Amino acid sequence: MKVPFACLAWMMLFPMLTMTNLAAAWEALPEEAPAPADNPPSAAKIELGKMLFFDPRFSSTGTVSCSSCHNVMEGGDDHRSTSIGVHGVKGGRNSPTVYNAAFHSVQFWDGRAATLEDQAKGPVVNPVEMGMSDLQAAIDRIAAIPGYKAYFDAAFGPDDSVSMDNAAKAIATYERTLITPDSPYDQYVKGDLNAISPEAVAGMELFQATGCTSCHSGPAFNGPSLPMGTGFIMKFPIFPDAALVEKFDLEADAGRYVATGVESDRYMWRVPTLRNLVYTAPYLHNGAVKTLPEVVTLMAKLQLNKELTEAETLNIVAFLETLTGTFPEQTMPRLPPTPGDLLD
Amino acid sequence: MKVPFACLAWMMLFPMLTMTNLAAAWEALPEEAPAPADNPPSAAKIELGKMLFFDPRFSSTGTVSCSSCHNVMEGGDDHRSTSIGVHGVKGGRNSPTVYNAAFHSVQFWDGRAATLEDQAKGPVVNPVEMGMSDLQAAIDRIAAIPGYKAYFDAAFGPDDSVSMDNAAKAIATYERTLITPDSPYDQYVKGDLNAISPEAVAGMELFQATGCTSCHSGPAFNGPSLPMGTGFIMKFPIFPDAALVEKFDLEADAGRYVATGVESDRYMWRVPTLRNLVYTAPYLHNGAVKTLPEVVTLMAKLQLNKELTEAETLNIVAFLETLTGTFPEQTMPRLPPTPGDLLD
Repeated sequence: MKVPFACLAWMMLFPMLTMTNLAAAWEALPEEAPAPADNPPSAAKIELGKMLFFDPRFSSTGTVSCSSCHNVMEGGDDHRSTSIGVHGVKGGRNSPTVYNAAFHSVQFWDGRAATLEDQAKGPVVNPVEMGMSDLQAAIDRIAAIPGYKAYFDAAFGPDDSVSMDNAAKAIATYERTLITPDSPYDQYVKGDLNAISPEAVAGMELFQATGCTSCHSGPAFNGPSLPMGTGFIMKFPIFPDAALVEKFDLEADAGRYVATGVESDRYMWRVPTLRNLVYTAPYLHNGAVKTLPEVVTLMAKLQLNKELTEAETLNIVAFLETLTGTFPEQTMPRLPPTPGDLLD
Repeated sequence: MKVPFACLAWMMLFPMLTMTNLAAAWEALPEEAPAPADNPPSAAKIELGKMLFFDPRFSSTGTVSCSSCHNVMEGGDDHRSTSIGVHGVKGGRNSPTVYNAAFHSVQFWDGRAATLEDQAKGPVVNPVEMGMSDLQAAIDRIAAIPGYKAYFDAAFGPDDSVSMDNAAKAIATYERTLITPDSPYDQYVKGDLNAISPEAVAGMELFQATGCTSCHSGPAFNGPSLPMGTGFIMKFPIFPDAALVEKFDLEADAGRYVATGVESDRYMWRVPTLRNLVYTAPYLHNGAVKTLPEVVTLMAKLQLNKELTEAETLNIVAFLETLTGTFPEQTMPRLPPTPGDLLD
């Protein structure tokens, strides 16, 4: 494989990291996502998880479900800069796509949850997301819908099956089915050299040569495949151009520091997947950047201290557009009926 | 057919109406819903309509779709007493189910829309529902999503296909597929005498004998099948027991009068369907009544001035429970991607 000069320079800077990336370069997305040993997948868990994922009764007002901010009918996010939850209150960060989240080794923008199971419990009790007072209140709500019991039993056996842990396991199991293999890029790296355009091929080479792969490597372009719970966390911005930082308000949110209080976590963020970017605008943790050309230019400048020409940017965008995969065709879940006194 | 004394008494009071009801008694739900001559159904309209029905980008904040208040994954309503739209603001009335709405000859609780096509345009510009400033802004939003054009063209031809009228036609066409035939009741009236329990049969006879069928007749139990736009509108309450009116706040909303300003429309309401009541609690225009036994008792008292025994009530409830039909299995729509500057 030809290694361009810019990439060599990068290798000298971060030799270990870059070698890893090169070894793992241009991987297709697996057809299945990894699951933790204590939550093996099953059809019954997937079915229950899909029901719970789409059930707005999991929120205080009965109006917000997981799918409200992670709309699997579109890109797995909510196409807003930052999300709106119960009572119409805006959250502080851009909703990350649930598609291919199973290929992240940690969850949330700041990586504060180790697994999809842990993540699933977060928004339910976030006051500006689903707004339940606590996890007990959340599972009490679900337990008060009699039709759910049979589905929990089928997934987890009859003993105390209706629990928040099991609900989270079911949701996570469903989310592990939300993967999008077989993009033009995947077809290309599997050998179909006509699957992507010459511009995209040029963009792919440039994507590596520019150094984008130092973070955006691996099958989901979110870093190397790491054991669940590990986290591939990077600083952003690395080269904080003052004008750009101000324009896009990039330091208003201290990132992982907010979760840990550790000074070295300031402006540290989990590297997001680049798959299906066409579906997940606007971009960045605060949704401040509206288009792919803008975000490519910005990331080159702020992370790699490089100025891309317009032609280079457009080639990289052409490459990124080949990362749109095949979204699974899904039937709608049927949710069990609501007792009349469940909500106001 | 045996006509109980109570029903004969009712016939003397309203002879024309009751004869109509008897002639039309115990009809199964048709397998297809009627469509207006200027909007014949097609697969392309259904597909586009389903996309638009589930698209939250039709609302000002991008968070509320038709399915938010008419959740077809459950009972076609939102299981709240009154709905919550954009900005978390509560509406004034209970969300009517979209299932079998195609069998209503007018739409909304007060019948102010003649067709599903007209109805579809209402919530989009209602400030506490989807909150778009006007219909032009709503269709401009959809037109700004480039992926929609091909679907509008397929449904309506290539000339000026992306219009609010066509969007409403597509949504209405999709809604006409949201019907639930083949309930145990339907099987029973088609000749399967074991399809419902003896209690339900007793309840069915009592439902007619008590006089419930004077309003709740026809295949959808929302009155006789009338030409689209006609409206089967009744007063509620007819016998306004002061204590019950106060307890359930039944006269706070003047009903059809609010839409027409005509004094004779005060407390007039479209007769709702009774199909799938198990899925559509809480009940009444304000969602004030939580359970089926309560609402049956209340309606007998307020509309027919009758006191039902507990046993009679439970039999009628057993009958109403047989009206839960077969919900269509549906695939999820795939929504076209969002340009990054579409929403805040």
